Amino acid sequence: VSTDLAFGIFSVGNRRPRVGARLGDHVLDVGRVLGDPVFKEPTLNGFLAAGRGAWTSAVERLTRLIERDAAPLVPLSDAKLHLPFAVGDYVDFYSSIDHATNVGRMFRPDEPLFSNWRHLPIGYHGRAGTVVVSGTPIVRPSGQQRVGDDVRFGPTSKLDIEAEVGFVIGVGSPLGRPVSIDDVGEHIFGVVLLNDWSARDFQAWESKPLGPFLGKSFATSISPWVVPLDALAGARIAPPRQDPPPLPYLTAADAWGLDIALEVRLNGDVISRPAFKRMYWTPAQQLAHLTANGARLRAGDLFASGTVSGPTVDERGSLIELTWDGRDPIALSGGSTRTYLEDGDTVTISATAAGIDLGQVTGTIAG
Amino acid sequence: VSTDLAFGIFSVGNRRPRVGARLGDHVLDVGRVLGDPVFKEPTLNGFLAAGRGAWTSAVERLTRLIERDAAPLVPLSDAKLHLPFAVGDYVDFYSSIDHATNVGRMFRPDEPLFSNWRHLPIGYHGRAGTVVVSGTPIVRPSGQQRVGDDVRFGPTSKLDIEAEVGFVIGVGSPLGRPVSIDDVGEHIFGVVLLNDWSARDFQAWESKPLGPFLGKSFATSISPWVVPLDALAGARIAPPRQDPPPLPYLTAADAWGLDIALEVRLNGDVISRPAFKRMYWTPAQQLAHLTANGARLRAGDLFASGTVSGPTVDERGSLIELTWDGRDPIALSGGSTRTYLEDGDTVTISATAAGIDLGQVTGTIAG
Repeated sequence: VSTDLAFGIFSVGNRRPRVGARLGDHVLDVGRVLGDPVFKEPTLNGFLAAGRGAWTSAVERLTRLIERDAAPLVPLSDAKLHLPFAVGDYVDFYSSIDHATNVGRMFRPDEPLFSNWRHLPIGYHGRAGTVVVSGTPIVRPSGQQRVGDDVRFGPTSKLDIEAEVGFVIGVGSPLGRPVSIDDVGEHIFGVVLLNDWSARDFQAWESKPLGPFLGKSFATSISPWVVPLDALAGARIAPPRQDPPPLPYLTAADAWGLDIALEVRLNGDVISRPAFKRMYWTPAQQLAHLTANGARLRAGDLFASGTVSGPTVDERGSLIELTWDGRDPIALSGGSTRTYLEDGDTVTISATAAGIDLGQVTGTIAG
Repeated sequence: VSTDLAFGIFSVGNRRPRVGARLGDHVLDVGRVLGDPVFKEPTLNGFLAAGRGAWTSAVERLTRLIERDAAPLVPLSDAKLHLPFAVGDYVDFYSSIDHATNVGRMFRPDEPLFSNWRHLPIGYHGRAGTVVVSGTPIVRPSGQQRVGDDVRFGPTSKLDIEAEVGFVIGVGSPLGRPVSIDDVGEHIFGVVLLNDWSARDFQAWESKPLGPFLGKSFATSISPWVVPLDALAGARIAPPRQDPPPLPYLTAADAWGLDIALEVRLNGDVISRPAFKRMYWTPAQQLAHLTANGARLRAGDLFASGTVSGPTVDERGSLIELTWDGRDPIALSGGSTRTYLEDGDTVTISATAAGIDLGQVTGTIAG
């Protein structure tokens, strides 16, 4: 049971939000049973910053309470779940070779994968302030788009998802001091599921030469529970072989990927089953790269994998890939079809890893 | 005198940092004379969030104290200056047509300015966690770079500056609710000078297709004093004509630019005098664009103009432009020359606008 504990922020009624742990269909009221003030705070950031010793100790103490049936539990249905941590910087990677190749083939058939892709984990900074908790309605964004020779402003007609796994930084690092690839376990607290909502029409028009901006910055949803990385030890696997071999700063003494099975549902229908184990760049490589230039880490920083896609159609983690930019609509039960998202659509991403439930991240499109 | 007040965070000896206002070569101890608790905080964020009424009232009350010679002053030389606000999201624009064209000509002679550039203010998110206060040493970053056919990891050999003006958000905005271009004055508190340090070799290798990442995220320096936008009313000018005319959401009832004269010194020698009045996209257009998709604003968000450059060589705000990527070294006094920055070099950007001193942002390269 103990390895299934995930941490988040909950409230009941008008009470102040504080730290809780998910236990099946209940919330364990951590703020009530563990004395440390960090558990009374309305974000996990204090606990995140406390480091591995505190993380391990909290899980051990809570596990003992559960074993003695002494844990104060609140039914999940009575709890309101909040954004689990104040997001410092949010970085989004692009680490699925199938996703990068698919998107590249659509827009650059002559060069689907740029020459840099196999040398470094490509990534960029997203907007931390628009990271929201699962369940937050997603307002269809307006923006500039090019239609033929015309440049217009209006609601996106290519509203998409990206099914991703996010990694939450616990212990920070000082400016100017890179984190070694073999030390990432001291810094990464845990894992969330993440949907990086995207407006493909804005993105196509705005991205040259500085990358995505308003096509991404309107909303990024994360699951309310952060699963400690330690709890996923049983899901560690050897990552795919990399060619060319990575440079030394990206070469771990003991490389690992994670066997996380994702499922993407649109209005209840499963439309994709992306497998995280296929990701080319590992979380450790992403974090080592992110800090290689001396960039500082802070508790609450978030980095995401990029869209998780695999080599087959039913493993594609975005609608732009699933429908090939609208060319091949997907069929839903009840006879309807979709290219991109319509108002009222609900997208839910869930996942399991080594028998552990990673929860879900969901959102419904408001017109 | 009153219009010259700028706000920052200072400390003396071991005392806790709190809000101060710059007054010539003194710091006015705002935390001591104004009762509101926001002035006792170690960041300006509480004051920023308090809104226009509070901003105006604070300036008026401080002005009266100064006029009565009742303001508690600390010599600037006794004060330690801190990062003035906790940075929420940091966005960097690309709004000088001369800068964009210069950089474009170097790398894409066939298409220096992409077709989107005149339609929207191109920008991207930078790393908020590595924004540092003026005077912080800049550690030369290491990173991946391509040299001929070889991909290597090592210290940058193209360490550059970007002379910019940054705008500090006071009052936030809710998710899903764009800020109208005519309301930006309710949200922008003030102005800082900003040096967006850049490693051009990393940037050239990593930027396709998602934009700059480690070539920028190692350090961004800002001046310690935030000059209220209201104090710069006398520097407002008509912005350059835009062709094509901007879309309605980028069209202000009363468009304004700012006549800010920047000066860039390298080891004491003036190497450039960029004129902010030449910027193609205005701060109001940048903010309206940034929120057009419903992106939320928070107190402490920072958006910067992008490198300020003009049409002549001595108005170029970066070394990549001044030396044409190293082809044309610049001469310094004492007979030395520079292409990019060397260890020990000090870069200082200062500015004035309508007789108001905007202070300076400085940094020295540590090897």
